[in-house]
Amino acid sequence: MSLGFVVSACAAGGGRCGVLRLPHGDVQTPVFMPVGTQATVKAVAQDVLERLGAESAGAEIILANTYHLYLRPGHEVVRRMGGVHRFMSWTRPMLTDSGGFQVFSLAGLRKVTEEGVEFRSHLDGSKHFFSPEHAMEVQVALGADIAMAFDECVETPATWERTRDSMTLTHAWAERSKEYFDGHKCERPWGAEFEGKTQALFGIVQGGMYADLRRESAERLVEMDFPGYAIGGLAVGEPREVTREMIARTLEILPRDKPRYVMGVGYPDEIEEYARMGVDMMDCVLPTRAARHGLLFRAAEVGEDGAAVRMNIKRVEYAEDQRPIDSTCSCAVCKRYTRAYLRHLFVAKEPLGATLNSIHNLSFYLDTMERVRAELAKS
Amino acid sequence: MSLGFVVSACAAGGGRCGVLRLPHGDVQTPVFMPVGTQATVKAVAQDVLERLGAESAGAEIILANTYHLYLRPGHEVVRRMGGVHRFMSWTRPMLTDSGGFQVFSLAGLRKVTEEGVEFRSHLDGSKHFFSPEHAMEVQVALGADIAMAFDECVETPATWERTRDSMTLTHAWAERSKEYFDGHKCERPWGAEFEGKTQALFGIVQGGMYADLRRESAERLVEMDFPGYAIGGLAVGEPREVTREMIARTLEILPRDKPRYVMGVGYPDEIEEYARMGVDMMDCVLPTRAARHGLLFRAAEVGEDGAAVRMNIKRVEYAEDQRPIDSTCSCAVCKRYTRAYLRHLFVAKEPLGATLNSIHNLSFYLDTMERVRAELAKS
Repeated sequence: MSLGFVVSACAAGGGRCGVLRLPHGDVQTPVFMPVGTQATVKAVAQDVLERLGAESAGAEIILANTYHLYLRPGHEVVRRMGGVHRFMSWTRPMLTDSGGFQVFSLAGLRKVTEEGVEFRSHLDGSKHFFSPEHAMEVQVALGADIAMAFDECVETPATWERTRDSMTLTHAWAERSKEYFDGHKCERPWGAEFEGKTQALFGIVQGGMYADLRRESAERLVEMDFPGYAIGGLAVGEPREVTREMIARTLEILPRDKPRYVMGVGYPDEIEEYARMGVDMMDCVLPTRAARHGLLFRAAEVGEDGAAVRMNIKRVEYAEDQRPIDSTCSCAVCKRYTRAYLRHLFVAKEPLGATLNSIHNLSFYLDTMERVRAELAKS
Repeated sequence: MSLGFVVSACAAGGGRCGVLRLPHGDVQTPVFMPVGTQATVKAVAQDVLERLGAESAGAEIILANTYHLYLRPGHEVVRRMGGVHRFMSWTRPMLTDSGGFQVFSLAGLRKVTEEGVEFRSHLDGSKHFFSPEHAMEVQVALGADIAMAFDECVETPATWERTRDSMTLTHAWAERSKEYFDGHKCERPWGAEFEGKTQALFGIVQGGMYADLRRESAERLVEMDFPGYAIGGLAVGEPREVTREMIARTLEILPRDKPRYVMGVGYPDEIEEYARMGVDMMDCVLPTRAARHGLLFRAAEVGEDGAAVRMNIKRVEYAEDQRPIDSTCSCAVCKRYTRAYLRHLFVAKEPLGATLNSIHNLSFYLDTMERVRAELAKS
């Protein structure tokens, strides 16, 4: 068994709630997955992650980053430490991304061929090569419950022709990823208690901002028969209507009985919208990155537009504000600390500021998904 | 009532255990007080501080810094927020230092007169003036359970004459501090539940590295009749034998029925040694500062010298070390994380590294004091 997916309710708009069964546990969907780039969700300890959210259910699945862990501490180190779960002491499900996005956004001096991509480390300039096979080897060594096929991320904006060529390469790499993965998935670094269980490999739909290419990419990947599908290459600067359109066109093609994952989105209202369209999984650095910059999300109050409001905690208007970030939020931060104190921590550059802000923002994201799941469950 | 102090056991070496009763709660002594410079113990959340140590009793008292909070967010802001306890959401006892040490070590362009000291903020270069009266006004606004008399900290090394003159000034300032404090202590920013309770003001013994001046300073302050006495101006670079000698000579003079506090020490073996000499309170940034630099304290193993060992977590020998920092430690970090993971966090500059290292080091300090108290209690 690598993955089970049960849809328990489906709304008219396409949104559905379900359960994703993975070797390290069950995940209620639709789910938002906090990002732990370097095997740590920045500034938040694992026991805190386990208790996040209104019901203290915590994060049921988190991400780690293939490119970053490959470079540091190295995937072979992580393998010898028992895989990324044991390495970071996280017993719940995990997902590693393909590494593609980081190779194409962080690394230097890339040279892409059909064989793979040569790149230089953003840490020390050292030269490396990722083929689909090598990317799979790295992800099997890391041992997340879900691995992602290696893909090329096209620059943006890109012409239709450039996007099509890149997509075609991504399809070839997806096939090679799957073949290597199927041949080596038994090598995941898990203990005896996981006997008979393996990782699951998802394919990634590309196609840029072209609906016809998105559909073609989805069809081609569905033919390859992955246990789940991601939609990649979105939220890279395009208008939100385009993101929504690309997701909608792709969802039409992807099978309804398999999990569907939009990578790297988004604001609270976006993750809610995409979940209602039928997306089952999402991840984004936004809640933690914004937190480190003092940007906090809270529910709108009477008279404010939208469902979620952003507040910049460094503003002087909060200097003596004795209220919590969000009076309707039951996270540990809103229960204990005032805006005045959080502003002080931010202005004084105290590390606790990033921690408390991250705890609140992540709680807000998880609570948003919990609310959407509850509503979808009634449909 | 401002302070009660009950000595329950006294060992032959002078060490004693007791209870310090303060408006915000009781403190078992001898006690190590974590330093929360800017109203936060760096990188450690308040709920974590409340559960530190082998028995999860947590820190019973923490420090905050008068100079830092005066500059940012400003003592009047803290007063309006209900005092430093409410500002940072910490309900247990607190102590604020005199501000003297920081004015003389951090601030720029100081001009000292009998009236007080003019200095420039290390943050923005703005000009400020601390007289003993103003320093007391600031500490009453902050509202810690224990405030400290304003003192001059002499540069080191300093001649006997220079040290004597500085000490004489400190004595004059101590008298003025006490007079102002007694006239204004009713203004502390506490709620109705603290009716009839006030802060307590401690005097600070100075005298540099001269035993005769230390004795003279202690005698002079005892005449002023403070409810507790600190020994300041130590651990500023002098050899450890000198620190020990100055403490010993001063303890001979200080009354046995009042708490005795050595400011700004030290390594784990030092705090243990001074506690056994009869020191009741100590504080130091070392456990948290060292943690942020990857320096961890642990109990010595068979074959290692001393009681406590320092390890530098960034060393490559820990890269695949699956052991906890200290196999005899029951802190949350040693129960969950490996040296390999902590090294990775440090090398990858992840903020969680500072947090976990700080939790362990503070636990180690609190456990050290817990062990010393248990042994002293048997005497």
